This record gives sequence, C-alpha cells and structure tokens, in this order.
Amino acid sequence: MYREEIKVLDCTIRDGGLINNHDFDLRFVREVYKALSESGVDYIELGYKNSKKLFSSKEYGLWKFCEDDVIHKVIDGVESKAKISVMVDIGRVDMEDVKPAKDSPVDMIRVASYVKDIDKAIVMTQEFDKKGYETTINIMAVSRDQGPALVEAFHQTEKECPAKAIYIVDSFGYFYQESVEELIKQAKDIIKTKEIGYHGHNNQQLAFSNTIEAIIHGTNFLDATIYGIGRAAGNCPLELLIGFLKNPKFDIRPILDVISKEFIPLRDKIEWGYVIPYAIAGMLNEHPRAAMALRGSDKKENYREFYESLVDTDVE
Amino acid sequence: MYREEIKVLDCTIRDGGLINNHDFDLRFVREVYKALSESGVDYIELGYKNSKKLFSSKEYGLWKFCEDDVIHKVIDGVESKAKISVMVDIGRVDMEDVKPAKDSPVDMIRVASYVKDIDKAIVMTQEFDKKGYETTINIMAVSRDQGPALVEAFHQTEKECPAKAIYIVDSFGYFYQESVEELIKQAKDIIKTKEIGYHGHNNQQLAFSNTIEAIIHGTNFLDATIYGIGRAAGNCPLELLIGFLKNPKFDIRPILDVISKEFIPLRDKIEWGYVIPYAIAGMLNEHPRAAMALRGSDKKENYREFYESLVDTDVE
Repeated sequence: MYREEIKVLDCTIRDGGLINNHDFDLRFVREVYKALSESGVDYIELGYKNSKKLFSSKEYGLWKFCEDDVIHKVIDGVESKAKISVMVDIGRVDMEDVKPAKDSPVDMIRVASYVKDIDKAIVMTQEFDKKGYETTINIMAVSRDQGPALVEAFHQTEKECPAKAIYIVDSFGYFYQESVEELIKQAKDIIKTKEIGYHGHNNQQLAFSNTIEAIIHGTNFLDATIYGIGRAAGNCPLELLIGFLKNPKFDIRPILDVISKEFIPLRDKIEWGYVIPYAIAGMLNEHPRAAMALRGSDKKENYREFYESLVDTDVE
Repeated sequence: MYREEIKVLDCTIRDGGLINNHDFDLRFVREVYKALSESGVDYIELGYKNSKKLFSSKEYGLWKFCEDDVIHKVIDGVESKAKISVMVDIGRVDMEDVKPAKDSPVDMIRVASYVKDIDKAIVMTQEFDKKGYETTINIMAVSRDQGPALVEAFHQTEKECPAKAIYIVDSFGYFYQESVEELIKQAKDIIKTKEIGYHGHNNQQLAFSNTIEAIIHGTNFLDATIYGIGRAAGNCPLELLIGFLKNPKFDIRPILDVISKEFIPLRDKIEWGYVIPYAIAGMLNEHPRAAMALRGSDKKENYREFYESLVDTDVE
C-alpha cells in the first residue's frame, strides 16, 4: 500500500504514558525519538499538555505536561524530519501556557473529545490554530457514540473547525473491519475538506487490521505505537504498520532496534498487550477501567468471574 | 455474526503440539477436551496420525500418533457433542493403521497438502472416505502458491474428492483482509459442492481479523486455538472467535477458565504469540523456520540482524 498522502503518527510516549503516569525518563524518550526520526514517521507525539494547576508534578511524570523546555531536551541535536505533536483534553489545558507555535518545538496539538464535547473541542482547535499550530480532533469512544450525535459532530467539525484531520478513536477496542469501513465511509461522506484519522486499540488483536481497513477506505492519518505499547491492550504496532506501508521513506530497522533494546526490558516492568480481561472488555464494548483494576488485584487471572461481572451488570 | 452452517474446529492440541513435539500429558489434554466440549465447538483436533515406522515415540509425544486407545483415554466419560479430528501429512500415515470409522473415536481426518501434492491428497481423502471418515483438504502455504496451480487445485478438489471442506491455510501469517477476500471469492467461484475453510497464523496479529474476513465472504469451517497457541506466532484465538460469533450454542466461559488454569502457566514454559521475529517472517512471506531457530539461540532479540538476513537473501 503506497499513498503519498498517508501520515503516520507515533504516539508511543503519549499513549504508553497512560500506563506509568507519563513517567518515562529523558534518556528513554530520547532513544525513542531518535529511532522514530530514523524510521521516517511523520509525527511524534510526546504526551499531554496539561495544566500544572490541575495535576501535580509529584504524581505525574514529564509527559503529562510536555513543557517546551523539556521537549527541547529530547529533540535538540537529533536530526529529524518528524513534527512534534502533543495531545490535550478538554478543560485540562491552561491556554496561557501555550506559546505561539513559532516560539515552540510543538507543531501539532490534538484535541481528544467525546462526541458530547465537540463544541468545546472545536473552539480549542480554533484557538490553537490562531496561535499557528496544526490541529486535529480525536473523537473518542466512537463505539459507544454512534448515530445522529456522531453524524452531527462530523458536520460541525467539517464546517466550524480548522483541524487538518478528524480522528475516529476506537477507545474500547470493540470494532472489527466492517464497523471501521462503515464509519470511515460515513465520515468521508460529510468531511470533505479535512483528512480522516484512525486510532485503534488492540483489545481483540484488531488494531492493525482495523488500521489497514481504514487505509483501504481512504484514511490518511494513522496512529501507531512501538511494540503496540499503550494503555491496557495498547495500540496498533508501528512495526507492523511500517511493514505494511510500501512508501520507501519508512524504515523498519530503527524500530526493530529500539524494541530489542528498550521495549523488551520495559515489557517486563509494565504490562500492555493481549491480556484476557482487556480482550473481554473489548468484545463487550466496555472501558478498560475495570479490567485494569483487575490486573492490579490478586484476582488478575480470574477471567470467568470478571466476564460474568460485566455481562451480569443490570442496565436500568 | 450468526450463521448456522458455521463450524468451529479447535486445533489447540494439534497445532500447539508443533511447539513441544506433541508432548502434552494426558491430564492436560483431558482438561482441554472438557473445556472445549463445554464451550460448544464442533470439532476438536487432537494431533497427527503419523506412522510409528517413520517417527519414534521416544522422540515425540502421544499426539504425533493419535492412537485410538489414547484418544479414548481423553474422551471417555466426558459429555461432549464435539467430533474428533486428526490431521495427516502426505506420505506419513500408515493406511493399515487406520481402522474403519465405526471402530474408531475419530470422526474426521484432515489432509494437509501443498498445492503440488494435491493429487496425493485427493487419493487419501478418497480412501478415508471409503473407511467412513469425514475429510477435509487443508491447502498449506497458499501465500506462496497462488495463481494457476492453485486454481487447478480448486478445480480438482471440487471434481475429484469427497472432502466436506477445502481449507485455505495462511501458513506464513502473510495475508491481510484483502488477500483473504480475494482467495475466498476465487475458491467459492470454483468449489460449489463443499464448504470452504480458513486457517490463519498470527504472525502479524491478523489471524482473527482474517478469520472474520473469511466468515464475511462465506467461509463456514473455521480453525482456532485456545489463547492462540500454535507453532511460532500461533493461530486465531478461540476465545476471540467465540466472542465474535453470536450463535448461542457457544459458551466462552469454559475457555476463559482453562486459559486461567492451564495456558497462563504453560505460556511461561513454551513460547508462542506476538514475537518480533515471527512478525518479520510473516510480513516477508517466509516460513517461520529461521525465526524459530533464532528464538532458540542466544541472538533471540537481535531483530535487525534477523530482518537483514531475510531481506538480503539473494534470489538466483
């Protein structure tokens, strides 16, 4: 598959940070940044830009805040064509903290939003756009929010926001290829002036195949992470995506190296990937919260009990 | 997805046996058989039926030979609606050893064959059919053998053999959903009097999504294994497939139990699943042989070197 318009965004440090309170050390992040730069990915997302008034830097690591001077410590002196991205959540960013793009190492700000918050997300992209940043809106938990509200969100983003891309995010790892095909077609019918993006979660080992499905139907912004790292089941593995894309600008070898050296040892310390409670949460279209709590408890391998706790929940 | 014609075949013990020389103990196999019987799968494949003249029972475990009396030790006293399947390789079975089906616990014999051996496979299905067995032909390594020879094999099996199903086997874990769609359509255009089957390998985390794709295009015989166990990267995880199929005859809970109790401890002893050298072999359409050798060596995490050894091979 070769299509020049395709952009690969690696969110290893950002989504991986959801496992360890964003507490990767600078050496590790710099090694990841170097490998990604050599691999030819288009964007590298380093974390969230959260207000220090809302979150304590004692409790969270550097990548919860992504201050410009910290980003410089990662990127300075490394040859790279990649752009830098950060993510923001609605209501958690201090707009005063965000310098004009020309004074910042950050190129793109991605706004994560539920369908219900889309108006707020649009306003944020407008403000970041005025400061000179590229923007996207990443619509989360789409598997729970389909139907008229989602269609309306597509119309609004198309009309009102300056974002380069509108992402469909399968937060719960619920989708399979037919769901992705349908959603991408629906989005592209409405959103004509921006790209569509896809961000999958790997609960059911479907993040890569769903990303392929999104590509087939014209999605050009693709999220992935090294060795699939990310909260709970993690994400589409970057090494598989690069192996699939035939654009000669990508090189899988630096990614293989950094997996050998950094991610194999890391996986012994923190857990992500194909773990049965995450698979169960995915197939039942549930947030991974309960599965993550289970994995932190002494019942971590009690799969049947966990499954029954989810399917027996009364809906009132 | 609910389609009454769909048959799920679990090949946990057969394909899993390729990791450990078919040396699962009787207790383990009986636990697996019980769980599978409770789960409602249609067929349970216990191993290969190989001639003891060709392979030593000192070197290989019970499931390399699948003698009827050994199978009885697994199944006797367990309530089950599942049929028993064994696999044979061409030229490795002693036809004298195969009793008439009415005197055997085995219901189905599956013949694994490369495209080039299809005539021999057809003769074998005819002989097994005469003895009263259900049969299938599992065409291996299809990703290397596409084109006219495969088309001819489809025509021959349709015309000449009594098999219930002709399987497409993605031995190298190379396919993605578009390849599967194309192959299944091609097979179904020719093979009208038998079912199509699909057996995936999980090198690129695509075995489950490819199985879904096969279902979408009318494949009714589906292979899977518990927790995805199988040689190298393993297979389509049965728990995911059962989670996807909506036929109420299937119950995921006994599978969750047996994963907790048997497969989590087993995975600490033998390796299968998402392992980078297997992913590399899959994306390059290579047999996992070299990757398995690497994993048994002291260079097991030298991914870049392994990748380069495969892509730099001269083709004469």
